[in-house]
Amino acid sequence: MLGNIDHIGVAVDDLEAALAIYTTGALDLTIEHRETVVEQGVEAVLLSIGASHVELLSPLGPETPVGRYLAKRGPGLHHVAYRTDDIDAELARLVASGMKMIDQTPRIGIQGSRVAFLHPAATGGVLTEIVQPAKDH
Amino acid sequence: MLGNIDHIGVAVDDLEAALAIYTTGALDLTIEHRETVVEQGVEAVLLSIGASHVELLSPLGPETPVGRYLAKRGPGLHHVAYRTDDIDAELARLVASGMKMIDQTPRIGIQGSRVAFLHPAATGGVLTEIVQPAKDH
Repeated sequence: MLGNIDHIGVAVDDLEAALAIYTTGALDLTIEHRETVVEQGVEAVLLSIGASHVELLSPLGPETPVGRYLAKRGPGLHHVAYRTDDIDAELARLVASGMKMIDQTPRIGIQGSRVAFLHPAATGGVLTEIVQPAKDH
Repeated sequence: MLGNIDHIGVAVDDLEAALAIYTTGALDLTIEHRETVVEQGVEAVLLSIGASHVELLSPLGPETPVGRYLAKRGPGLHHVAYRTDDIDAELARLVASGMKMIDQTPRIGIQGSRVAFLHPAATGGVLTEIVQPAKDH
């Protein structure tokens, strides 16, 4: 079963400008973590909001998934991530069900998490991630 | 302060097809509520996922906000909503800060909630809602 919404991913074309919006003024969110995730082609910043997060995603180049997303759709909501405490079992269940997946096996996400993406064609156009946070997060 | 992610809103062009995806098979989410919200121009279905929700939004016609969104961008992530337990105070705080808002006063949302939308131009392209659930939800 999928659990709570862990985060929403937001594609940004100017990370510092987005940080200025989200971490000051009325929104005033706190930066929990900042990391370049080379495997995903992004510089990512996790902001805390309640028990969830906003993940700002800045592409490392135009030929990355987020870079191509920005070129096509502009800045905005990129994906939603649901938490799981056993990504291996959850992913096996999704694959066995015939769900169209981007990832057949988990990969490393931000903060040492393990993540996998479902294909948006299987979820009504919503890029959907499952994430198992690292034990110390 | 904004609280946990209450829900993500998903624009769909075929509500029954989207329900088939989200309530059966591997996703298998439970329908919590279904309602036509005339003021927002949508038929909406709330699905439970952990302590959060997925809100499927089907436009009542092409000249509604979600209808125009679908024509422009196709089905997918439409907005994110953060919970607040005092929308009057939260909205007053946002307006006083100069945040660009769609709603200057709360309006009625699904399930008797009170909601207000921030303008996406003020949040990096993310249509953002604040929601105070009705007391019995």
